[in-house]
Amino acid sequence: MSRLAIASITALLTVGHAYAAEPITLRDMGSFHVGGRLVEISGKPVKGVVFTPGGVPAKVDPNGTYQVEQMYVQYFLPANEKGAYPLLMWHGGGLTGVTYETTPDGREGWLNYFLRKGWAVYNSDAVERGRAGWAQYPDIFKSEPVFLTTANPFERFRIGEGLNSYDADPAKRKLLPGNQFPVEGYENFVKQNVPRWTTTDDAIVAAYIAEIDRVGPSVILFHSQAGSFGFKVAQARPDKVKALIAIEPAGIGDPAKADVLKNIPTLIIYGDYIERDSRWPKIRANGIAFADAIKAAGGSVDIVDLPQAGIKGNSHMVMMDKNNLQVAGLIQKWLETKGLTK
Amino acid sequence: MSRLAIASITALLTVGHAYAAEPITLRDMGSFHVGGRLVEISGKPVKGVVFTPGGVPAKVDPNGTYQVEQMYVQYFLPANEKGAYPLLMWHGGGLTGVTYETTPDGREGWLNYFLRKGWAVYNSDAVERGRAGWAQYPDIFKSEPVFLTTANPFERFRIGEGLNSYDADPAKRKLLPGNQFPVEGYENFVKQNVPRWTTTDDAIVAAYIAEIDRVGPSVILFHSQAGSFGFKVAQARPDKVKALIAIEPAGIGDPAKADVLKNIPTLIIYGDYIERDSRWPKIRANGIAFADAIKAAGGSVDIVDLPQAGIKGNSHMVMMDKNNLQVAGLIQKWLETKGLTK
Repeated sequence: MSRLAIASITALLTVGHAYAAEPITLRDMGSFHVGGRLVEISGKPVKGVVFTPGGVPAKVDPNGTYQVEQMYVQYFLPANEKGAYPLLMWHGGGLTGVTYETTPDGREGWLNYFLRKGWAVYNSDAVERGRAGWAQYPDIFKSEPVFLTTANPFERFRIGEGLNSYDADPAKRKLLPGNQFPVEGYENFVKQNVPRWTTTDDAIVAAYIAEIDRVGPSVILFHSQAGSFGFKVAQARPDKVKALIAIEPAGIGDPAKADVLKNIPTLIIYGDYIERDSRWPKIRANGIAFADAIKAAGGSVDIVDLPQAGIKGNSHMVMMDKNNLQVAGLIQKWLETKGLTK
Repeated sequence: MSRLAIASITALLTVGHAYAAEPITLRDMGSFHVGGRLVEISGKPVKGVVFTPGGVPAKVDPNGTYQVEQMYVQYFLPANEKGAYPLLMWHGGGLTGVTYETTPDGREGWLNYFLRKGWAVYNSDAVERGRAGWAQYPDIFKSEPVFLTTANPFERFRIGEGLNSYDADPAKRKLLPGNQFPVEGYENFVKQNVPRWTTTDDAIVAAYIAEIDRVGPSVILFHSQAGSFGFKVAQARPDKVKALIAIEPAGIGDPAKADVLKNIPTLIIYGDYIERDSRWPKIRANGIAFADAIKAAGGSVDIVDLPQAGIKGNSHMVMMDKNNLQVAGLIQKWLETKGLTK
């Protein structure tokens, strides 16, 4: 057995049993769904479905009204709240709120970190992901879902050295040198991936707007695919968004409305190896251009390229990397500097 | 606007902002995925996918290895642990771990209740549900998913008075008299429903076994569809299951192996209106027969029909009903009686 495989098994055995140094004291925790709409389906045949083997068949009429495009939000409210506003965490594509929970190798993630710092954290699953549920296609969602192979995120999230860097044998995987992704937990990370669609952006934005309308003025921390969601929701609700923290945004807001964001303190963070990747130089350039448009309108955008700040080796999954708490500390300090703690 | 609709909106506005009386102190919280297997897909064309509108197209080769049939577990470990073992919570069909979180009308659910009582709670999403993700069909899952209309659970979960009791207008819905389901939150409950398959039982059982192998000796509380999962996993791992709490089990274990359960204290709970339903008399009879088989082998099974215990009006979703904490109290007392607290 390879050394990596043994490390992976060791991590599996310890995850969930590591005792945190300090207790987390909550005044409350819970969850809710928000947003969505009702859709009518008609003209389909009635089915008899045995839901449990050996069970009693139930009649299921597929015609009728369906609830679709809602999203799921789980909240943790610290007893000693120190954030000036709730902190909303929005995950990237093909992922769920699990992104911010325990890292794939069993360390504390950003949810716990910011909760321990006194933030009321609202961690969510966007429309179509995880506990949000998903809708029939092509009747309601207009395309097929995308499934990722085990190799895909390794090669696309700047963990491995590009195409064909992944191998079924962990010992044969070609890592970007100095990479901070916890490769011994890569198999666990793949288990966090869920199917996604590419035609549901408007529904996702609508649900995120419903979330912020319900929670009230908030700070939004968002990752990757949620780049466009974070900026667009802020453009739709500029008075309710008190700060934006974009972690490697893969999309941007409406450039024609960049001025709407001028009063919202914004932090954009990029990891390492951007220039070695086939897609990320262009993605980052889009983000910088959008930031420039906000700044040209009088806004305040801080851009941190982690390697230039002396923090090296970060993959696209910054919140899971081995130095994830160092980057979280940088974000926390930025929030303090912006007067967003109390 | 109807009185019910106004009540529903009021509930929406207050959910997530109700302060719990006593803080919840955790020594740790986190999550993990467990179980599953790798599957090869071959012979499909490569696609170019634009994951974010305006983004840079990425090459997605659908051929390759897929991680499938894992499950998701979220854990909350109280600082002052009083349960003798961890408490695993397994949801029913078409649902996720959200079942045990905040009720659809914004009250505390069983997750918080048992956590406050000092249980280390492991709340999960079974294979194919929620944060567990789901696999391609018919390539991997062998059937189509089932989607439920907004009317279906109302008529099937003993909330309304059977078929055609649901109406889009809450004021026109025909409730079973005295029903404890929080009907003002029914629209929220529908948002908790997710697609399900009927051909994944073996994969679900395998993942649950992987969960208990990882967490170690545990008490399992399971609902509805998970009836068969709870009993079957206990039959596969009798030494690791310290008690079974079956909430309206829709399925049972292997009757030929009932004797394997003889050393596991078991509690089965049924709600109200069983005899008025078209399916539940038969479902309950199956459960009673299975309990009788365990008892005939020398086992201990306590069956509580809530109305006979003076607790009336419970739907199939006992953990969400208005008297949910009264039923939780009955379970807690049973666990104490069985010596499962410390």
